[in-house]
Amino acid sequence: MTVNKQVLLASRPQGAVSTDNFRLVDVPLSQPGEGQLLVRHDYLSLDPYMRGRMDDAKNYVQNVAIDEVMVGAIAGEVIASNHARFKVGDKVIGAQGWQLYSLSDGRGLTRVDTTVAPLSYYLGVLGMPGLTAWIGLIDIGKAKAGETVVVSAASGAVGSVVGQLAKLRGCRVIGIAGGPAKCGYCVSELGFDACVDYKAGRLLEDLQAATPQGVDVYFDNVGGEILDAVLTRMNAHSRIPLCGTISQYDGAKVHGVRNFRSFLVNRIMLQGFIMSDYKSVWPQAIAELTQAVKEGKLKYRESVAEGLERAPQAFIGMLKGENFGKQVVKLT
Amino acid sequence: MTVNKQVLLASRPQGAVSTDNFRLVDVPLSQPGEGQLLVRHDYLSLDPYMRGRMDDAKNYVQNVAIDEVMVGAIAGEVIASNHARFKVGDKVIGAQGWQLYSLSDGRGLTRVDTTVAPLSYYLGVLGMPGLTAWIGLIDIGKAKAGETVVVSAASGAVGSVVGQLAKLRGCRVIGIAGGPAKCGYCVSELGFDACVDYKAGRLLEDLQAATPQGVDVYFDNVGGEILDAVLTRMNAHSRIPLCGTISQYDGAKVHGVRNFRSFLVNRIMLQGFIMSDYKSVWPQAIAELTQAVKEGKLKYRESVAEGLERAPQAFIGMLKGENFGKQVVKLT
Repeated sequence: MTVNKQVLLASRPQGAVSTDNFRLVDVPLSQPGEGQLLVRHDYLSLDPYMRGRMDDAKNYVQNVAIDEVMVGAIAGEVIASNHARFKVGDKVIGAQGWQLYSLSDGRGLTRVDTTVAPLSYYLGVLGMPGLTAWIGLIDIGKAKAGETVVVSAASGAVGSVVGQLAKLRGCRVIGIAGGPAKCGYCVSELGFDACVDYKAGRLLEDLQAATPQGVDVYFDNVGGEILDAVLTRMNAHSRIPLCGTISQYDGAKVHGVRNFRSFLVNRIMLQGFIMSDYKSVWPQAIAELTQAVKEGKLKYRESVAEGLERAPQAFIGMLKGENFGKQVVKLT
Repeated sequence: MTVNKQVLLASRPQGAVSTDNFRLVDVPLSQPGEGQLLVRHDYLSLDPYMRGRMDDAKNYVQNVAIDEVMVGAIAGEVIASNHARFKVGDKVIGAQGWQLYSLSDGRGLTRVDTTVAPLSYYLGVLGMPGLTAWIGLIDIGKAKAGETVVVSAASGAVGSVVGQLAKLRGCRVIGIAGGPAKCGYCVSELGFDACVDYKAGRLLEDLQAATPQGVDVYFDNVGGEILDAVLTRMNAHSRIPLCGTISQYDGAKVHGVRNFRSFLVNRIMLQGFIMSDYKSVWPQAIAELTQAVKEGKLKYRESVAEGLERAPQAFIGMLKGENFGKQVVKLT
């Protein structure tokens, strides 16, 4: 009989996340009952939002309880089924958490088509990050041809899609990323017009040079000092879809946003958002993303850790920007 | 022959505004030529936005140049006219600046009806501040019956209208103002449900007690620490029309906004705005404000300084919150 492995939240981080905050456990694996199915998890998605779920501070939704399985999306395969809608061999995605297997009654599981794209893509460019990019850039940011779009965490799962979608729509696109490798990738591989390396120590100057006509849409994944710098470049009636504040996750060093007056002077619209509030536009977004992937117009890069036991370390690395592209864990 | 008096911008403030930044001058007054008219200014409006115009930093529009007449709205009477649309005795408002008279070709002047309300009201509840209140609360903030609305600078020209309009629409209204007199006025005279005295030293606690169901719309006139406090009380999908940052005007002590993550977690929409961008809704707003004034449903209070030479001191007092109600200068 197979044993399931799970990663539990062992304790809440005090400041930076450490591997001590997680615990790997073995639990017995039941067979599916009537109306149930069993999913083998092939990939686990690691995403910045998980950091917020580890705290007990107010968040979008309920946080992870101590000794509970860490929250997260997986992509996998149905390996046993007593369920009318799913059969063995179906490829699925769902929010099954950091574990190797899950029993399900089918709710929240979505069947995906691996003839269009590899299974793991449904955790990234064709999944939550891709939808997040589309919603922020298009539904909230209303990016138009000829406008300047800036995106932070530019080489990441969300940022890389934001920039490429903006290029497809005729925008000028400037990325912000950490280090020459990521910046080079944004320009050479993803086709951004420029990319500012925030680790180079000349953030304000480099940003100014890269945005001679100011900024119309800033897709913000990071908050903090980078937001403050971009606020000096915003145009009148510009928009800031606020997708994440990864720079502020490890609590101790909160950055007060000093250039707040720019919101008034430039009549900026800022909207914090989470993709699950925008279900009405998912079909349109998924159709456009799928078409672009099929036509080879959306490049996509993954950072793959091997084995569930490496998930905590990979997650910690991602929070520090050590990943390069969408971070997943290969479980099989 | 009459002499015109003007207040010029003599120098740009270094930190707080002082009377040295202004200069009172006498200039000869010409008679109107063909197509021109002469306006006697009865009231000058003093408004926080003027502080921004004294700097050379980027602002909504062009700033006041050194030795130029200070920018500002007046209400007055046509005393000579060679203009087809205006006749002697017409009551008008316009952006004629800090002076006793002005020659005009009629552009930017609006005739007002003093049978509906006293002339000076067209600088306040029926003028720019009233429109600003309506646009922020209704067009941007989308305040709905049953929601909680918080407004800062609550007893002021804009804030007092925001709160009363919100009450008329069935909202719960909490003001934030400085000192027991202003707070008492908001509750007893204007009918707010509560008012928090930010000078009492318990801003966070008092705000929490006054907003047991959180905040759905925060009409922000002040920015800074008060904004940071209100951010701890915002509900999911709440809105912040950002109308002013008066707490941040005297440059040196910029407050970094620390609770910025609330924008993300609560999916807050923030929109910096200026009423002149919303001309399409002016007729609707003016109609509603006029009707409410006629019916005695909008109370309105003025702080009146006497004489143009007192305008600089009155303006400095207003920036410090020493006024109580809409600040005007009576010129005649």
